[in-house]
Amino acid sequence: MQVAVLTEPGEFEYRERDRPVPDADEVLVRVGEVGICGSDVHYYEHGRIGDYVVESPLVLGHEAAGEVVETGRGVTGLASGDRVAMEPGVPCRRCAYCSRGEYNLCPDVTFMATPPDDGAFAEYVAWPADYCYRLPESVSTREGSLCEPLSVGIHVCRRGAVGLGDSVLVTGAGPIGLLVADVARAAGATDVLVADPVDRKRDLASARGADVTVDPADLTEAVAAHTDGLGVDVVVEASGAPSAIEGTLDCVRRGGRVVLVGLASESTASLDTLALVDDEIDVRGSFRYRDTYPAAVSLLADGSVDVAGLVDFEASLADLGSAFERARDPETVKGLVEVTTRR
Amino acid sequence: MQVAVLTEPGEFEYRERDRPVPDADEVLVRVGEVGICGSDVHYYEHGRIGDYVVESPLVLGHEAAGEVVETGRGVTGLASGDRVAMEPGVPCRRCAYCSRGEYNLCPDVTFMATPPDDGAFAEYVAWPADYCYRLPESVSTREGSLCEPLSVGIHVCRRGAVGLGDSVLVTGAGPIGLLVADVARAAGATDVLVADPVDRKRDLASARGADVTVDPADLTEAVAAHTDGLGVDVVVEASGAPSAIEGTLDCVRRGGRVVLVGLASESTASLDTLALVDDEIDVRGSFRYRDTYPAAVSLLADGSVDVAGLVDFEASLADLGSAFERARDPETVKGLVEVTTRR
Amino acid sequence: MQVAVLTEPGEFEYRERDRPVPDADEVLVRVGEVGICGSDVHYYEHGRIGDYVVESPLVLGHEAAGEVVETGRGVTGLASGDRVAMEPGVPCRRCAYCSRGEYNLCPDVTFMATPPDDGAFAEYVAWPADYCYRLPESVSTREGSLCEPLSVGIHVCRRGAVGLGDSVLVTGAGPIGLLVADVARAAGATDVLVADPVDRKRDLASARGADVTVDPADLTEAVAAHTDGLGVDVVVEASGAPSAIEGTLDCVRRGGRVVLVGLASESTASLDTLALVDDEIDVRGSFRYRDTYPAAVSLLADGSVDVAGLVDFEASLADLGSAFERARDPETVKGLVEVTTRR
Amino acid sequence: MQVAVLTEPGEFEYRERDRPVPDADEVLVRVGEVGICGSDVHYYEHGRIGDYVVESPLVLGHEAAGEVVETGRGVTGLASGDRVAMEPGVPCRRCAYCSRGEYNLCPDVTFMATPPDDGAFAEYVAWPADYCYRLPESVSTREGSLCEPLSVGIHVCRRGAVGLGDSVLVTGAGPIGLLVADVARAAGATDVLVADPVDRKRDLASARGADVTVDPADLTEAVAAHTDGLGVDVVVEASGAPSAIEGTLDCVRRGGRVVLVGLASESTASLDTLALVDDEIDVRGSFRYRDTYPAAVSLLADGSVDVAGLVDFEASLADLGSAFERARDPETVKGLVEVTTRR
Repeated sequence: MQVAVLTEPGEFEYRERDRPVPDADEVLVRVGEVGICGSDVHYYEHGRIGDYVVESPLVLGHEAAGEVVETGRGVTGLASGDRVAMEPGVPCRRCAYCSRGEYNLCPDVTFMATPPDDGAFAEYVAWPADYCYRLPESVSTREGSLCEPLSVGIHVCRRGAVGLGDSVLVTGAGPIGLLVADVARAAGATDVLVADPVDRKRDLASARGADVTVDPADLTEAVAAHTDGLGVDVVVEASGAPSAIEGTLDCVRRGGRVVLVGLASESTASLDTLALVDDEIDVRGSFRYRDTYPAAVSLLADGSVDVAGLVDFEASLADLGSAFERARDPETVKGLVEVTTRR
Repeated sequence: MQVAVLTEPGEFEYRERDRPVPDADEVLVRVGEVGICGSDVHYYEHGRIGDYVVESPLVLGHEAAGEVVETGRGVTGLASGDRVAMEPGVPCRRCAYCSRGEYNLCPDVTFMATPPDDGAFAEYVAWPADYCYRLPESVSTREGSLCEPLSVGIHVCRRGAVGLGDSVLVTGAGPIGLLVADVARAAGATDVLVADPVDRKRDLASARGADVTVDPADLTEAVAAHTDGLGVDVVVEASGAPSAIEGTLDCVRRGGRVVLVGLASESTASLDTLALVDDEIDVRGSFRYRDTYPAAVSLLADGSVDVAGLVDFEASLADLGSAFERARDPETVKGLVEVTTRR
Repeated sequence: MQVAVLTEPGEFEYRERDRPVPDADEVLVRVGEVGICGSDVHYYEHGRIGDYVVESPLVLGHEAAGEVVETGRGVTGLASGDRVAMEPGVPCRRCAYCSRGEYNLCPDVTFMATPPDDGAFAEYVAWPADYCYRLPESVSTREGSLCEPLSVGIHVCRRGAVGLGDSVLVTGAGPIGLLVADVARAAGATDVLVADPVDRKRDLASARGADVTVDPADLTEAVAAHTDGLGVDVVVEASGAPSAIEGTLDCVRRGGRVVLVGLASESTASLDTLALVDDEIDVRGSFRYRDTYPAAVSLLADGSVDVAGLVDFEASLADLGSAFERARDPETVKGLVEVTTRR
Repeated sequence: MQVAVLTEPGEFEYRERDRPVPDADEVLVRVGEVGICGSDVHYYEHGRIGDYVVESPLVLGHEAAGEVVETGRGVTGLASGDRVAMEPGVPCRRCAYCSRGEYNLCPDVTFMATPPDDGAFAEYVAWPADYCYRLPESVSTREGSLCEPLSVGIHVCRRGAVGLGDSVLVTGAGPIGLLVADVARAAGATDVLVADPVDRKRDLASARGADVTVDPADLTEAVAAHTDGLGVDVVVEASGAPSAIEGTLDCVRRGGRVVLVGLASESTASLDTLALVDDEIDVRGSFRYRDTYPAAVSLLADGSVDVAGLVDFEASLADLGSAFERARDPETVKGLVEVTTRR
């Protein structure tokens, strides 16, 4: 089978590899579509993310869906022909985090496209059956591949305890921010504000149902005006900019919640801790997701969230380099790679 | 001003009373619409509900909205001309329950239309300003009056922790059951099943978006078929029938939640406590509501819930007797009384 | 090695079996002490518990601690010589319950001494390393074996959300009830009431720190007197008697929590569902435990809970039959079997 | 009656004022003891805390207990002769925060010794009866006055969800830090570490039961050594030093909680937000307390927390100036003022 590997920053090569053989508890998936994530682009540009360094050719891609073509002998819940979304992180199943159900924090996770673990820009991937989620007829693999960023959005909203009647501000209208806004509405938020400096992204947020969109330069005033000076119930910071992180405390109401999900290249922000204490704010990090795929599939199946509308372009696996160049454009929200249509 | 009082079971009379004068922290509301609740009908039929006995002429009606026509001198947040939904229970503000925010459990609550406290089938009601919620332009007082049963639905969904991707079964498709189904969807439930023996109510549930409707006679099989034999995440029992209460444990998944909201005339049910322990089920009572009106108004404002579609008929205050007779019909879901258009 | 098997009700036999060889992720434990649980006694008396039937000779015993004598090649956290408490239920690690951390509800659990899985009345047991918990110097294996019932108590208190300043009533002062009372105090409960019909058990509860002990015949009055008629915050029903289950609603305060942990042979109780709704009570089943062993070991290590004081007698493995006869005595709280001192 | 007022920084004067007359819902309390809080000292030193400026002579003191000597006509739960602890903040009872039970965040609170509201360095104070908590025989007013800092500790532990088996690090061993450590143990924490640069305070922490005490200079290493490099479940930052706030993220485990309670004069801290996200940490502000007094009284009554042992000295109201000078000493933990023994 063919795979695309990142050999050095900016350089993809195509390789032939043996088709993997699924273990007893695995299925073999013929990969359909794979979304291009900001982390993929970061590896493509820099060859590393923090301590994770691409030291040997790495298969990128972790937002994947496809079709089961073979099942390990111990697999009972899936059959060949099933279309599935693949959850890219498989935890150790044995540590205290796994035991408590906080498997997104498992220190021994295997995660697609995180060195040294290969990802899904490959014709076939063998993957544990319990981390593959069957898609109903009404959900395409194209949509299914985006269960991954949708899962980020679901986890963020759970971390922020977004509920009926809440007001939610999302700063940063990339795919994560936009999906957080969608999921917040699906969870009962009735007032959703989205901030982004890019006109096109604000327009997209509006078109998808945001009640207010605003340029970050005008954020504090806009929030105050919209909330009678009280602030919103929940702020989700999805841009990663230190200034945006610092500004969250000006936008959240007393007793409200701030969820940080955007990863900045800079790692510190100067928080007004006096305000944090006086106003009894919670600032909560949100890392990947756990137990979100079933809900993600259900939200797609009943039309609560429109992931297809986020996709700016689709490229074939043969054009991976140019696809990544397009993905780098700040105006781009989401690019998809069609793997199986390559030949 | 004119009020309608229940003098004995089945008997309304009209009386002239002095228009109330609002206290410093109250507003005077000219009542617009008032919904007829099952408890109103029960007082109309029996002159009592349990220990609450109608001993002197009682004004019924507690699902009310109207227009502020006068404000007490200490009121700052409302002005004449504001249209408001009125929360009918005002707690003592001083007990341990009020202090903890569990004011729906306050033993010293004043509750409209619960002897000896009068309700809203009256031209004017003076009511604490903080229990009157301003309606935005997009929400009529007709809809606003139904913030009350909608609040019951919101509280039930909070009690049941209904969230993204949950499956929810509602047994009993009266106004409460139907609104629970609506609110569950608004809170992210992606699979909503509704059971009721009345064809018309099942049809209404379907038309409002229920994924499955079923006659209670076929309930266990239908739930099993729809959930691969696992049961739903949450069962909300809104019929009050002991057999329905007992059946909830056959429909909920292991580790799931059962919320009881329907008040039966019979007060006991034989629960399979062995199953309750083995399957680690939560059975949670849900009584009235707390802190729901702002969310209710928001859900109406953004169109998440359609209360108007529940209304079978509207009657004038002059026709209260015949309105109550129609409300007794098992096919009826909700009747409204227009108070201020009476003259 | 030698094991004791239950061949038919009331009949233990001793057998020689091959010493098990630990898998890669397992350790081999030389069993020290094993507590006799009510479920062991039930199998001994009836040869079955509900659907679980002893169809071939079964090794009973699931409250076990011992010493690691061999480790599988993949084991890193334990070494020979470590003394460990063994958690008797090992879940599938793959289902939705395991994924959510609710592994006590895993339908594919392997549980010691539950047909067809053998238990710990054996000289050696091979067991997954991550379900063996190292005991510090200050905790003996004798105490460590009782991490199991202590875990039940911890899980009950978590299910009941017992916290600082709570009042807690425990009905049934067997080992579970007594340990629930201890754990409740360790979790901050400042008022603990214990009900049991057996004088000796009430005395034991008092000696261990219960604020009030009472015969169940006088329960409602005693609770009312002690709580100014309000009821306690949490009732834990640990007797399993239907009448005790039914009485919980008379003892809990409005908005309080009832946890059911005792398994009755009868499986239904007539609950006052009108009270459950009006008083917004939660009735919560509690099944086994999850993520409790680390806390159990810590509570023993710092002396917060005294499990040794519950032990009425210790017997050798050779005397298992007479040990079980003593364990059947209603006055007995807990019997221990010393396995490794048998020869 | 006599009161002590702060007229300008460093200057107390004694004044004669009319004894207050309790309103219908108030009681008149003859003040017994009043603790000296860091905020009292701050007003004494600077004449202000942030935006709160002492513009006219202010009675300080808000940690108070005493004896009821008169009751308003509407008071039913208290009688003359009752000894009570007084909760110093009385909220508006009407806003959204009060309604939700989050009354510590009420923007319209009346708080003792916060300009312009007078405090308790006065022979008599009239106070709402529901914010006065009867002390049982076993609790002195001397102890009862310290229900206030104990309440801070209870609220912190609730905010941090401290529970059975948790490890907790407290940075800053002033009265708040020490009481947080005590309450954490009372709530089930089995491993409590306390950091403070002052030898005497570390010694006091050890004597009160801390498992580990450490100088902040050695903190990260000490925590790593004590937790196998994993970090503690909960960090409570009670010193207010920006460096201490910043260091919390090095001491908390992945998925753990950080509670900030110490108020720094500096208002910003540079937090490692990348770590906060990657490790999915919660950073939670904790402001004053709510619904803590009943638990505080219960914890004192059953001996779970020893507040008396925190008191370094007791002074009479006549010696307020020298008492405040002693309270400024960094070695001092807590000073008490005996108000009623003054004459």
